[in-house]
Amino acid sequence: MTELVLIGKNAKEARVVTRNMDTKEKNKILECCAEELVKRTDYILEENAKDVSLAKENGMKESLIDRLMLTKERVLGMANGLLKVAKLSDPVGEVLYMKTMENGLRIGQRRTPLGVIGIIYESRPNVTADAFGLCLKSGNVTVLRGGKDAINSNTAIINVFHSVLEKLKINKNIVQLLTDTSRETATQMMKLNEYIDVLIPRGGAGLIKSVVLNSTIPVIETGTGNCHIYVDESADFEKAKKIIINAKTQRTGVCNACESLVIHEAVADEFIPLIGEELNKKGVEIFGDEKTVSLLSYANKAMEDDYAKEYLDLKISVKVVSNIDEAIEHIGKYSTGHSEAIITESYENALKFTDEVDSAAVYVNASTRFTDGEEFGFGAEIGISTQKLHARGPMGLKELTTTKYVVFGNGQIR
Amino acid sequence: MTELVLIGKNAKEARVVTRNMDTKEKNKILECCAEELVKRTDYILEENAKDVSLAKENGMKESLIDRLMLTKERVLGMANGLLKVAKLSDPVGEVLYMKTMENGLRIGQRRTPLGVIGIIYESRPNVTADAFGLCLKSGNVTVLRGGKDAINSNTAIINVFHSVLEKLKINKNIVQLLTDTSRETATQMMKLNEYIDVLIPRGGAGLIKSVVLNSTIPVIETGTGNCHIYVDESADFEKAKKIIINAKTQRTGVCNACESLVIHEAVADEFIPLIGEELNKKGVEIFGDEKTVSLLSYANKAMEDDYAKEYLDLKISVKVVSNIDEAIEHIGKYSTGHSEAIITESYENALKFTDEVDSAAVYVNASTRFTDGEEFGFGAEIGISTQKLHARGPMGLKELTTTKYVVFGNGQIR
Repeated sequence: MTELVLIGKNAKEARVVTRNMDTKEKNKILECCAEELVKRTDYILEENAKDVSLAKENGMKESLIDRLMLTKERVLGMANGLLKVAKLSDPVGEVLYMKTMENGLRIGQRRTPLGVIGIIYESRPNVTADAFGLCLKSGNVTVLRGGKDAINSNTAIINVFHSVLEKLKINKNIVQLLTDTSRETATQMMKLNEYIDVLIPRGGAGLIKSVVLNSTIPVIETGTGNCHIYVDESADFEKAKKIIINAKTQRTGVCNACESLVIHEAVADEFIPLIGEELNKKGVEIFGDEKTVSLLSYANKAMEDDYAKEYLDLKISVKVVSNIDEAIEHIGKYSTGHSEAIITESYENALKFTDEVDSAAVYVNASTRFTDGEEFGFGAEIGISTQKLHARGPMGLKELTTTKYVVFGNGQIR
Repeated sequence: MTELVLIGKNAKEARVVTRNMDTKEKNKILECCAEELVKRTDYILEENAKDVSLAKENGMKESLIDRLMLTKERVLGMANGLLKVAKLSDPVGEVLYMKTMENGLRIGQRRTPLGVIGIIYESRPNVTADAFGLCLKSGNVTVLRGGKDAINSNTAIINVFHSVLEKLKINKNIVQLLTDTSRETATQMMKLNEYIDVLIPRGGAGLIKSVVLNSTIPVIETGTGNCHIYVDESADFEKAKKIIINAKTQRTGVCNACESLVIHEAVADEFIPLIGEELNKKGVEIFGDEKTVSLLSYANKAMEDDYAKEYLDLKISVKVVSNIDEAIEHIGKYSTGHSEAIITESYENALKFTDEVDSAAVYVNASTRFTDGEEFGFGAEIGISTQKLHARGPMGLKELTTTKYVVFGNGQIR
């Protein structure tokens, strides 16, 4: 039996353990794991140092090494993350509704764990702890397949968790790490329908695409964000400026950052120079259509593909439209379905935009940067779904559950 | 451009039409289509006769020909189905919750259509009308790929719908039928992520498996049912008998029929002869373990694989267990996760069973035959999901929607 199949079998067997665990026990595990992570910081950092030095030898980019590297603070961060999850309310067992039918059957829909969740991720070792925390609190077993570059760090973190579980006399297989990090085994994992209920890829666009294309297991796709802000004819310019600067520049490498502006032509002459100056001051490069370029000497002419780009950088595209319908159409064409905003003082256009724009989050007069589990009040998030099945938008603990119908009768037959 | 890609493009373009349609307009279309189906019954039956005679020439089995064949009553049935869907309440726009955050942002979660739904089905032409009705009412565009055997019937039904849409001056592409019924094209359709948001296979286990394995588009799996009834130590024998006979014999070819009995050993000696006699009277063949066979002269010895079988026939497997935990374990091992029931008078065991059995529907003292959209009060159903993502159990209109977050602000930034 390969390591992968053994892990799969073990995980499936362990489902019954996490599914039936009460909230107190789950919290206890999370708290003990947090404590042990802090206690064994030196060990984790030692193991992480092996990964980092190997990565340097292999000429890994600085920004990636930064993602891979752990520090005392980052280990503390992981531990605090687990403690935070322990404080969240337990989604399992929540009854979404219950009704009594004419025949007396009481039919209720109740939240229940998904089962075994597979997480395929890249080089950030803190995903190991974060994903385990969220999956456990929602009653699930976790199978982790991290990047090759982080294998020593991930193994160390899992060893710490396993030592806690051993002490608590709990089946260690409620969280397992695949140590075979070959590409072939990852692909095999994506077809392990017999043992894994759901796959969640966490990482760059390439990883996510590969999982979506190869997996026969249901996938929750966490996606990229080509987020738009549309400045309507009736926009309040002060709000617009503040929101656009925030959404573009507060953090550029994130999926809810604004990548494209759409401007109503009636306000273009006045607003584009205003916002252009602000963006320019912040060092944002502008890629605009003809109208934009005619108003801003420092703007570049946008190519067609600029409108489709998730820059994740100090860059923004600008498009002038003649009405809100054209704005909605433009957004529908280029958006990745993540987050879009309208800046308007018009009641009608606010409703129209929220009705007709088909994205995971649609804003009126607020920054797209709010699309986030914390900001939405979920306490934590495992990712932001841009697919339409199961979960859309920030995913918290509830999104890691499914439901079942529980039906109480007293002898009913058809 | 192939027919398939053209259909995909057309469908994607038409999404905006159904997404923004108000309830009145959707109902009008459904009512007009129902009326026109009845009016053009002769035409539909003529076209259906071509399929049927071809099928007979090709030596199709009687039971399959029966599924393919339309009659005046069946056409009326399709029309009435559309009228019934028109009467259901529109799920689009429902706000699941809305809350105001500390920063004043009002965040709401609102139901919205999935977009383009692809339906891959076999030889029953009435799926053409049923699927269109449910998809339209939930604001979706439908792409249909029916079986080769029913192509004339399906084309006729779609022609009728298109004539109605033309008269109403509505984009005909809100429902399209793929006339290329080759296997290769079906496989291509399963990879049309750019144009299709969700795929729902409707048909036998082979079709469903093929879609799950080949599709890169998210799939809602409608599944098979190896449903169990567990007769607990404290069971009321009268309830147990009535429920078992109903669940096994009221209709055998359906996924919510009972296929396997699990009996507590404390009641085996008394109950097995009782239920054996009843089942025998109804012509049900019994495949039991050693204990069962020792009690019933007419029972067959069960092979290991009997416990995994969805008989869809007058057959049932029987297993004696020494306690409820063993029953739950046995069910967990062999169940397809559809519907399971416990017959018990014990409060504790009723809770334990509903907590620990991981199936789409779990019953106490009622027949598994109730797992059905109509019986659950959804008014109609597009299938019964046995997967855990998105929808689990009977799927009605709500399960054909997704949600989006709508956020109202007044200038908030992070």
